[in-house]
Amino acid sequence: MKLHQIGELSLLKEVRKRFSSENSNIIIGIGDDAAVLAPQGEKILVTTDMMNEGVHFDLNFIPPFHLGFKLVSINVSDIMAMGGKSRYLLLDIAMKKDADEEFFWELFRGVSDAINMYGMSLLGGDLCAARNDMVISATVIGTGDRIVRRGGASVGDKIYVTGTLGDSACGFALLQRLTDESREKVRSSELGTESVFLTHNSELITLNWNIAEPLLMRHLMPIARDSAEMAKHATSMIDISDGLFIDLFRICDESNVGAKVYLNKIPISDEMRRTAEIMKLDPFHLAVSGGEDYELLFTMPPDCELQVENCELRLTCIGEIIERDRIVVDENGMEQPMKAEGYQHFGSAR
Amino acid sequence: MKLHQIGELSLLKEVRKRFSSENSNIIIGIGDDAAVLAPQGEKILVTTDMMNEGVHFDLNFIPPFHLGFKLVSINVSDIMAMGGKSRYLLLDIAMKKDADEEFFWELFRGVSDAINMYGMSLLGGDLCAARNDMVISATVIGTGDRIVRRGGASVGDKIYVTGTLGDSACGFALLQRLTDESREKVRSSELGTESVFLTHNSELITLNWNIAEPLLMRHLMPIARDSAEMAKHATSMIDISDGLFIDLFRICDESNVGAKVYLNKIPISDEMRRTAEIMKLDPFHLAVSGGEDYELLFTMPPDCELQVENCELRLTCIGEIIERDRIVVDENGMEQPMKAEGYQHFGSAR
Repeated sequence: MKLHQIGELSLLKEVRKRFSSENSNIIIGIGDDAAVLAPQGEKILVTTDMMNEGVHFDLNFIPPFHLGFKLVSINVSDIMAMGGKSRYLLLDIAMKKDADEEFFWELFRGVSDAINMYGMSLLGGDLCAARNDMVISATVIGTGDRIVRRGGASVGDKIYVTGTLGDSACGFALLQRLTDESREKVRSSELGTESVFLTHNSELITLNWNIAEPLLMRHLMPIARDSAEMAKHATSMIDISDGLFIDLFRICDESNVGAKVYLNKIPISDEMRRTAEIMKLDPFHLAVSGGEDYELLFTMPPDCELQVENCELRLTCIGEIIERDRIVVDENGMEQPMKAEGYQHFGSAR
Repeated sequence: MKLHQIGELSLLKEVRKRFSSENSNIIIGIGDDAAVLAPQGEKILVTTDMMNEGVHFDLNFIPPFHLGFKLVSINVSDIMAMGGKSRYLLLDIAMKKDADEEFFWELFRGVSDAINMYGMSLLGGDLCAARNDMVISATVIGTGDRIVRRGGASVGDKIYVTGTLGDSACGFALLQRLTDESREKVRSSELGTESVFLTHNSELITLNWNIAEPLLMRHLMPIARDSAEMAKHATSMIDISDGLFIDLFRICDESNVGAKVYLNKIPISDEMRRTAEIMKLDPFHLAVSGGEDYELLFTMPPDCELQVENCELRLTCIGEIIERDRIVVDENGMEQPMKAEGYQHFGSAR
């Protein structure tokens, strides 16, 4: 059924039924003019991020389930980057009247899976028609105690990242090069242990699913990294959304410091290295400026290293905070100026 | 200058400079991954509403200044409808790369005027490119003590509305019928004491600016009604966004009661009555189902009447809560079933 055959009110009623949650801190949830919370004395964190069709996502590539999941994750990632815990979600959705009801509920299933995974509740939102492109926007409210800002890095601090970098950008590049048939299988989640096929310079290349999957999934439905352990010791933290270097520049700007990063220390997954090679892309370029990693980038005094050893995430020291300059040490040990490459909306060079 | 010549980061830097606010409850404002607040023990209210080009607004009709102001107001109105006080704003803006910088800052000037008027601070947001239509979305966080829900109305309560109804819908109808020249003058705020011209059935009609202005302004930049006085006594409250009857139905649904409304008690401004007559529109239809009034609709026990007498807003009792039925008493004293007419996204009859 199409959304215009159902109507906003019936959809909202159903959303309210599916998402009503038992939580002692929620005085009023979905269904009134505003939601009402009883704060428990902790600090309150708030962030918002929107995703626009044709800019942030292409519905030919990303299935609605993954899109809903990703919208929650990218907002949760911002709360994590402050050392907070995500608690509540507000959701704005604008989509065409002739959109399928199935598409709508798949999107909500993605949102639902994500908020359950992160231990959050849906508090409310707005559902309305769009004339053309679909737009989704989320606000996440979290709580926290020790807040980690971007501006606390000091000279001598070590620079760390979680996970591996460039997987998402490589996954996106792969998604664009898949054959129509393989892409359709990814979209419909029909793939299991099969291979996917991509074309490069009119050549058909086979790639094992176990190599392609982590890259595609990191792009399609990233999981925000839990910062609980790092937040105890980090002096500064940010999540890598626009690219390692551009986000490291933000820490340097706010902290009034410089940074030295060793290219050969940057964690790159085997899957990414191999797939980038097949597509003739530079894995380092993907890792430092690909963006949408949603890994955490943080700084820590050198003597804290042992204390985060029991963190379940892979943590890699990629360099250190220095006084002023922003330097990359390349594979040959040569120092180069670091360039803040990454994604910027409205695409200016300034 | 166009936005793509400036770039997201420069725009954000400027927004941050203009909107950085001194407020002891804001621990971290604009410019980090998330904003951080220190709650002062009050309940926290949250609401979100989005506005889409081609659905909620037409840039041929509404100037960017008014659009920015209105976005804040419609969200503040939701907080007011709960008896809360609006404190913080988060703003999501998606617009085309080739949009003018002037348009952008006019939008922000409207946002800025509104948050100053309501005593709020800008906490953060997201700024990004849109492929086609512009989309703006706001989340408002407020605080409150005595929260007024939709579901508290009891049999015998009187039904009240603030202000006059239908002005916004009438103003919108007028805006659509203005001559190009008059509309351009409204857009560019060049009008003072002049008249505006509209066409009806190919006939050119002159309308005094002092009649047209309150209707146009109620549509273009509504001011949310302060609920502080009513919140002390109201048993239920909602803001009229979709139309009097549809929003009264919401109170009835949540409160498990009926309602009787007297058509001749519904407050209609002289300006609206006169302008509707010129356009051959039914003023009562505009008043009960026009929508976008952003007036408050609330219920109160009969013995509270005297206590809100010193409220600065015009308050009108339009009927009373009854057991089950939803009835309109028409101009001739005849009882008719009330119909929940009003705007619904995805436009279904269900």
